[in-house]
Amino acid sequence: MDALVIGAGGFVGNYLLRQLLAEGKDTGATKLPKERIRVDGCEVYDLDMGNANAVSRLLTELRPAQIYHLAAQSSVAVSWKEPELTVNVNVLGTLHLLEAVRSIPDYYPRILLVGSGEEYGRCRSDAPLTEDTALHPGNIYAVTKACQEMIGQVYARAYGMGIVMVRAFNHIGVGQTPQFVAADFALQIAEIEAGLRPPVMHVGNLSAKRDFSDVRDVVRAYTMLMERGCSGEVYNVGSGHAVAIQELLDLLLDLLLDLSRESVAVEQDMSRMRPSDTPVIQADITKLQTDTGWMPEYSLEETLHTMLDHNRRNFGIL
Amino acid sequence: MDALVIGAGGFVGNYLLRQLLAEGKDTGATKLPKERIRVDGCEVYDLDMGNANAVSRLLTELRPAQIYHLAAQSSVAVSWKEPELTVNVNVLGTLHLLEAVRSIPDYYPRILLVGSGEEYGRCRSDAPLTEDTALHPGNIYAVTKACQEMIGQVYARAYGMGIVMVRAFNHIGVGQTPQFVAADFALQIAEIEAGLRPPVMHVGNLSAKRDFSDVRDVVRAYTMLMERGCSGEVYNVGSGHAVAIQELLDLLLDLLLDLSRESVAVEQDMSRMRPSDTPVIQADITKLQTDTGWMPEYSLEETLHTMLDHNRRNFGIL
Repeated sequence: MDALVIGAGGFVGNYLLRQLLAEGKDTGATKLPKERIRVDGCEVYDLDMGNANAVSRLLTELRPAQIYHLAAQSSVAVSWKEPELTVNVNVLGTLHLLEAVRSIPDYYPRILLVGSGEEYGRCRSDAPLTEDTALHPGNIYAVTKACQEMIGQVYARAYGMGIVMVRAFNHIGVGQTPQFVAADFALQIAEIEAGLRPPVMHVGNLSAKRDFSDVRDVVRAYTMLMERGCSGEVYNVGSGHAVAIQELLDLLLDLLLDLSRESVAVEQDMSRMRPSDTPVIQADITKLQTDTGWMPEYSLEETLHTMLDHNRRNFGIL
Repeated sequence: MDALVIGAGGFVGNYLLRQLLAEGKDTGATKLPKERIRVDGCEVYDLDMGNANAVSRLLTELRPAQIYHLAAQSSVAVSWKEPELTVNVNVLGTLHLLEAVRSIPDYYPRILLVGSGEEYGRCRSDAPLTEDTALHPGNIYAVTKACQEMIGQVYARAYGMGIVMVRAFNHIGVGQTPQFVAADFALQIAEIEAGLRPPVMHVGNLSAKRDFSDVRDVVRAYTMLMERGCSGEVYNVGSGHAVAIQELLDLLLDLLLDLSRESVAVEQDMSRMRPSDTPVIQADITKLQTDTGWMPEYSLEETLHTMLDHNRRNFGIL
């Protein structure tokens, strides 16, 4: 097997499987029993990363040359309620993976560990975040991702394992749940256009600036880092640009069908405001670009258009 | 109860109990069933930090105003062999403590989490390490201590809990096991003096410089930080000086009884060399001193003399 995606049942996993299959890779996927893989052409396995023996058995059987580790408790909100579960899945799960690989004789796969821009936490300035910026994770999810990454660095250095780590910034696309701002806005607009809700957009803090990428560009960065990233190193994966949520909203409102912008009201909703929102989060992606040559292929407008049209088709208005 | 020391069965715990009792505190201690507390005057409880319910029950019963959290899998060597155990004890144990405190109504203790200078890991320069220096932990023990600290910062900020974190550098004193260099040298010299081994000191890398403190000064820093440290903040605890292992050896050889220095040979032992030894590790303790006024009371020579004399008494040569 060329590539195994662990935790392929989520938003990113499905895109990564498509990318790997498009690259002609013999690809496998693991998922939780309750999840579904919506991509044809890969072998699918149920795997609970909490079960160290099961992890070891599957890797011994498949011996994939590349392992993409996406399995995580990835909700910040859940991490507040279930900190122990989050540590178990994100920290012990990663340990189970690395220990399993280490214990299989003559097996030297490349491993990509997926972390998050959340690891940086409170930023002390608006400057783009380089990989050397000190981490101040502000929630338990972010702590576990920083911990996963430190474990990856220890195993890469101590055992000479081929482990590359990424810190992924906001990525958006079709299939994302509306708990994320771009998917939320794209859904609200399509619902307004379809007459399913009054012409009022409910928004949170519009001045916060974030680094948005198309999920298809993100998974392409992952496969390039898998091939060309330096072992033991951490890479930011993002667009390298900070875009205000207001701009995101404006781009979507510019795409309105049949309705004038003036006919849609925008209301700030206290429940969508986060008191501690960091004003600007922007990745410095020099290291990613230098080591892989990666460039984004989708503009933000293009991505938002795709998301909006997908919702419109679901509502039968396109 | 004024103060509870969790994990008091080790080297530092016993000194901390003595310090708290000397300060007139109503003091409790938890230990593992197999451990022994060698200090009179405090209540002793068996507690396994892996058992969240037991942690919660004991804190509900005792409601200590101050909690010193020393319970840890603190061996770097064991952390290589048992990474999962190390995560369970050091990360989940800390989570159990903080979640238990959070869940007890109207209970707002001060908590001190003990981390390690090991968290800094590979240093990129010989400059003293300030608390803002980026962490590059080089082993799983150090990773879990960095993780514990990040969790403490999250809980202090998110829930307004009174949590102070320390990064302790090398501390030495009577009672330390000879896997640590100062205790090892002090034991070898006493054995040579007692005629229990030939007059040959077996040493490792003598050029490495480390930051050594007397354990009695260290625990006094802990009690001062408990009273005066800022919640959510991290403090280095060390001497602020880097001393070469060679100097440590010379100080001990200067204390030889009845034997001339020339009569004791020094042999480098490959098994005591660590290939990746960081050349210089030195704490910047400005923050500790500014916020608490702490100053060390014991010179390195005094501490080594105490350790050596303790061994001599054990061998009946003093």
